[in-house]
Amino acid sequence: MTNTRKTNTFRWNGKILSILEQRDLPHKIHSIACRNHQQAADCIRQMSVRGAPAIGCVAAYGLALAAREKKYKSVQHMISALDQAYDTLAGTRPTAVNLFWALEKMKAVWQNGHANDPAGLAKQLVQKAMSLHEEDLQSCHRIGEFGAALLSPKSIVLTHCNAGALATAGHGTALGVIRTAHQKKKIKKVFVDETRPYLQGARLTAWELHQGGIPYEVITDNMAGHMMKTEKISAVIVGADRIAANGDTANKIGTYSLAILAKHHHIPFYIAAPFSTIDLNIPDGSHIPIEERSEKEVAFVGKTHITPKGAKIRHPAFDVTPAALITAIMTERGVIEKSKFKTLNSKS
Amino acid sequence: MTNTRKTNTFRWNGKILSILEQRDLPHKIHSIACRNHQQAADCIRQMSVRGAPAIGCVAAYGLALAAREKKYKSVQHMISALDQAYDTLAGTRPTAVNLFWALEKMKAVWQNGHANDPAGLAKQLVQKAMSLHEEDLQSCHRIGEFGAALLSPKSIVLTHCNAGALATAGHGTALGVIRTAHQKKKIKKVFVDETRPYLQGARLTAWELHQGGIPYEVITDNMAGHMMKTEKISAVIVGADRIAANGDTANKIGTYSLAILAKHHHIPFYIAAPFSTIDLNIPDGSHIPIEERSEKEVAFVGKTHITPKGAKIRHPAFDVTPAALITAIMTERGVIEKSKFKTLNSKS
Repeated sequence: MTNTRKTNTFRWNGKILSILEQRDLPHKIHSIACRNHQQAADCIRQMSVRGAPAIGCVAAYGLALAAREKKYKSVQHMISALDQAYDTLAGTRPTAVNLFWALEKMKAVWQNGHANDPAGLAKQLVQKAMSLHEEDLQSCHRIGEFGAALLSPKSIVLTHCNAGALATAGHGTALGVIRTAHQKKKIKKVFVDETRPYLQGARLTAWELHQGGIPYEVITDNMAGHMMKTEKISAVIVGADRIAANGDTANKIGTYSLAILAKHHHIPFYIAAPFSTIDLNIPDGSHIPIEERSEKEVAFVGKTHITPKGAKIRHPAFDVTPAALITAIMTERGVIEKSKFKTLNSKS
Repeated sequence: MTNTRKTNTFRWNGKILSILEQRDLPHKIHSIACRNHQQAADCIRQMSVRGAPAIGCVAAYGLALAAREKKYKSVQHMISALDQAYDTLAGTRPTAVNLFWALEKMKAVWQNGHANDPAGLAKQLVQKAMSLHEEDLQSCHRIGEFGAALLSPKSIVLTHCNAGALATAGHGTALGVIRTAHQKKKIKKVFVDETRPYLQGARLTAWELHQGGIPYEVITDNMAGHMMKTEKISAVIVGADRIAANGDTANKIGTYSLAILAKHHHIPFYIAAPFSTIDLNIPDGSHIPIEERSEKEVAFVGKTHITPKGAKIRHPAFDVTPAALITAIMTERGVIEKSKFKTLNSKS
């Protein structure tokens, strides 16, 4: 990701939250100006912004916007509005836990020792959102350092979806590891799954790698097995939307298939994610809600209708990869090997 | 597939070979009229017609057209033109062996005991092409019978690409098994991989199943593993472009990944193909040439450019599934279990 403001995933100017419209990438670069929490919620729901850490940050700013979008007579009036905004933002997407994690962090501000006047509480909420934003950026860089240390020189890495700067406050999780490893001259090439139906790989990850000067090749999702057999792929690294207490991981649809393919080819399979992605409230992956999105997102690519009229279509947006198929989880606190997944609980 | 002539994959009216333009399916139904072998070759190369058995039949008719497209002074002149047409047709696509098999069957006509006059030889070639066409249709029905016998009532089958009526002279190979099993009330549902980049599943297989009233759901290729885990899939059945003497099978890109996923989930993995797909000249799959097609076919869906400008893209159109991952091959002469793959040689 470049550092020009125009291509930041989201940016806060003290009043407005600008969100890069990812649905129009890579060919059109423009942002949506959010002046209230409803607009931020719409951006999450319609996937103008996506990626678990990014939607956590945007939801936090959404609550900051809620505190500023009206004149409140009292702190109690504001808190009542914040509670409603919380519900709206929490209802946007079900799978990524970072969304709920960030909302809870924000809620703690108005539940515990907040300012006595609306302006004071609003200021506290803005500061909290900005600090979550900054934390996420720093987490990504630490994940990058810890993860890159596992890679050897001339690594060929395969990744799925977009776990990059566009999915976070910047740098990325899985792509953060690749970026840091590239800086350390360890990356020979990155295979990028196009990631149907939303094409986050072809549209977003390829765009980030292109901008970053990191060698890559886009493949269709169904080429991954063939590439694992015919190219010397060193590792598969992907992000996560929710990690259960036992290490089972929900991520973009197709991740589970990749983990099986990696196992068959004896290729290490890594998850890169901040601790905010870990949900200790659920013992295993069977408790993770899997979002079913619109059939239309599968049936159309741009304006091209690829299926027959009236075709039956499925669209689970995520799948769950069992911990047994995961070699290690790369986090901002270090790399957690499979044998240590049971310590996730104590580390949180 | 309906029996109306308009939607036949190809049809011969005694003079012209009409080829259904599959690139425009499912939303536009129209045919290309081929009056010479060059037009037939173009249709194969540009994938207006595709599917190993279908391109074998079309290549055979291509040679029949070559015999009729000019006035030849002598049989020798005609044979010289046929040899050239043979090379043109053989150069269209490298992976499917049925193409070369059909061309050889046609060449045998002018190499062994042909008529003495151009008109007589032309007639022999037309008759041979028509008989290969008829044979393919009958083979598909026999494959359907043998294959369907392996399925239990309420089967949920997953298929990839299009190995249907549109890939053959009619009925289909993998889809022929599904059609016959549906007639025997054995099919509960078919999962159809959309099959990027050419979308043969979403566009063609879904269209055939829709027309045939067979219950189906289209999924993106990367959903296959998730569906194998969460739905009770009974079998994976796919077609083939070339089967080596040891049973290794080249088929549409993504087939190899599916075979690994099927193994992981203990789901039988079947190839359905006529004997013309078996290439005894090669001992194993490493000798099968894999066609690399245009990057543009991955980069664009309709007019929508999904990758960044200048993106690096790969496009192997096929992959090779090792015999060890194949449960059995369904052919017109019966089902060959993995343990009998060594008998492929003696059966041909």
